[in-house]
Amino acid sequence: MPVNLTAPAPETLRPVKGVTLGFTQAHIRKPNRKDLLVISLSEGSRVSGVFTLNRFCAAPVTVCKQHLALGTGIRALLINTGCANAGTGEQGLRDAEASCVALAQALQIAPSQVLPFSTGVILETLPMDRLLHGIPDAVANLQEDHWLPAAEAIMTTDIVAKGSSRQLHIAGKTVTITGISKGSGMIHPNMATMLGYIATDAAISQEALDHIIQYAVNQSFNCITVDGDTSTNDSLILIATGQAGHAEIQLGSAEFNLLRDALTAVAIELAQAIVRDGEGATKFMTIQVEAGQSTEECRQVAYAIAHSPLIKTAFFASDPNLGRILAAIGYAGIDDLDVDQLQLYLGDVLVAEKGGRAASYVEAAGAAVMQASDILVRVVLNRGSAEATVWTCDFSYDYVKINADYRS
Amino acid sequence: MPVNLTAPAPETLRPVKGVTLGFTQAHIRKPNRKDLLVISLSEGSRVSGVFTLNRFCAAPVTVCKQHLALGTGIRALLINTGCANAGTGEQGLRDAEASCVALAQALQIAPSQVLPFSTGVILETLPMDRLLHGIPDAVANLQEDHWLPAAEAIMTTDIVAKGSSRQLHIAGKTVTITGISKGSGMIHPNMATMLGYIATDAAISQEALDHIIQYAVNQSFNCITVDGDTSTNDSLILIATGQAGHAEIQLGSAEFNLLRDALTAVAIELAQAIVRDGEGATKFMTIQVEAGQSTEECRQVAYAIAHSPLIKTAFFASDPNLGRILAAIGYAGIDDLDVDQLQLYLGDVLVAEKGGRAASYVEAAGAAVMQASDILVRVVLNRGSAEATVWTCDFSYDYVKINADYRS
Repeated sequence: MPVNLTAPAPETLRPVKGVTLGFTQAHIRKPNRKDLLVISLSEGSRVSGVFTLNRFCAAPVTVCKQHLALGTGIRALLINTGCANAGTGEQGLRDAEASCVALAQALQIAPSQVLPFSTGVILETLPMDRLLHGIPDAVANLQEDHWLPAAEAIMTTDIVAKGSSRQLHIAGKTVTITGISKGSGMIHPNMATMLGYIATDAAISQEALDHIIQYAVNQSFNCITVDGDTSTNDSLILIATGQAGHAEIQLGSAEFNLLRDALTAVAIELAQAIVRDGEGATKFMTIQVEAGQSTEECRQVAYAIAHSPLIKTAFFASDPNLGRILAAIGYAGIDDLDVDQLQLYLGDVLVAEKGGRAASYVEAAGAAVMQASDILVRVVLNRGSAEATVWTCDFSYDYVKINADYRS
Repeated sequence: MPVNLTAPAPETLRPVKGVTLGFTQAHIRKPNRKDLLVISLSEGSRVSGVFTLNRFCAAPVTVCKQHLALGTGIRALLINTGCANAGTGEQGLRDAEASCVALAQALQIAPSQVLPFSTGVILETLPMDRLLHGIPDAVANLQEDHWLPAAEAIMTTDIVAKGSSRQLHIAGKTVTITGISKGSGMIHPNMATMLGYIATDAAISQEALDHIIQYAVNQSFNCITVDGDTSTNDSLILIATGQAGHAEIQLGSAEFNLLRDALTAVAIELAQAIVRDGEGATKFMTIQVEAGQSTEECRQVAYAIAHSPLIKTAFFASDPNLGRILAAIGYAGIDDLDVDQLQLYLGDVLVAEKGGRAASYVEAAGAAVMQASDILVRVVLNRGSAEATVWTCDFSYDYVKINADYRS
């Protein structure tokens, strides 16, 4: 079950002026589930995106990048679950384009104003007849208060719908930010089978929006991992409709910082929700590495810990088998690491220092920390002032079960 | 259960002239199991070793390196299971040295002529009283035909004892090679909680022996992975007693090549046995990457596949979810990889090419291959002439169970 995470109440996901959402059951892969989502944006909306670095990126990712580069102004997003349209070659590109054409016709916009997204099984082509048939239904269903069902419509192995919303004031106007995400397995920075859509009615220049998405993703979606796999389809989209009524925000202004921090907070909440609902997760772990020589080496250590199946299974068992963490620090790839200098903490408990178990450590103290469902692992390298944080979850029987059964 | 692996029959592990082995139950961690092994070597034996690259290397690894560097001639090895003596700081080093002193006294040799090894739980100190008490019993038990019980004595979560033996003829003399290994989880090149001891009665120069161990380890133990973790204690030791009666083999001779290839074959068998008995393994997978620009990039791709929990769970389920393999190839880190150029085979079945599913592929053919317990995954990159092979196993419920329960 998700770790300290429940679906948001519908009323907590506030409408964003200029955004409507429509969903339907298109039977892409399975019956009786919402699996097709349209997000319609008012004219003049600005959109920025970051995408998977996987060389086998899915056809819709390629099309998204092309349409964003054309700069004709994005007016709609089309998202299906059940089939990732990845590893589908030329056919996949034609299908992604054809679905943009169909939605464009329904909304009377240009195909290049549509961004397509797919998530689900790889190496199978889209069932285009069913997908095209679903588009008019989804369009007919467009409403500004459909954020929660939209979050449900993009779920795959997710157990809980993920959404976050907040408001702030800019130049006397109320600005709303609402976002949804899905993930659950194959989650790794850069960026995993993760889809995220965050919209605000703030008015902001394209340049400033592009800065914010990079900043926000580095603080959020690029700090999470479930199993170390990076998917073919990951996409994070940031939308600003400009309907809030204030003057356009420019890069570097005080308002820019306000909006950036609020958007980043929503992104962090959505990213952490993906880990909390990681496949089979029973624990949420924050891996915090401090006092390193560089952010990069701190991230290396954090990911070595976060990716270790031995550590993840020990956390599943609530077993303070902390030697496995020391081993992971040791193989993280810092060639000149002096292991006698570092400290390892579990929560507030000093576990190891001077190359071994801390004199003050008693296993009961470690075991007590391990009972919690939210656990902090802190490594102090004592060789610099850089730091990095990664969020991950444990490895349980259910992780194996979910992934062994995923296609059946 | 181990994948196509059974313990060797006792008589197949042939004695090696100049080597005797003695074991006992020292109750290091658990009662009623052989957990202490002494290997005694005749005077004039040559010994070469390779050790974990983990910065948190265990105390016995540090002591082994020191004793080998002293060059006083190694005469005995002392191996305990149950406690890894890793993450034990200064106390760990003192304990490792003290155990060398005790065995040296019993055998009337110098402490620097003893190599110590430990495997088991990290971050706990050795129970020195029980270990020291066990040494005379193990010494009293020394026999040349104790290779199989020796293989049993070094097991931790291994299910099956691992040994391999072969003979060859050099200059009219029969030369014997016998080796044992243990592993099972935390297995990764460079080199994992893996212990391996290979002895031959061949006569060979130290220089030539040092060459062979590097060659053999690169073809064997550095090509295996169970879970990507690299342990604190891994050690491979190659012993040549020189008792076979032929002239000393020098680097580069025809006899050198013969002996190198035979020793490497034993090393490969011992390394593969570790994967076949990987924790919870139900499938043995050979990941063969061909036609790359460099061995390094082929290994990157092979390890991306071999380490992916998504792929490993799909193999556990015998599910030809081959898109996950394409995804892993895509995130392996080859920046200029053209995914449209590569081919993916499962056994003899062409699965994917031109960026998608092969036109000739039918899922029944992939499913048929997946039913086997030994499976070949072959990736042809079509961008060069380098290749690399990695052996790994699947991820099952039992992997989680074993590692969640390991200390209890």
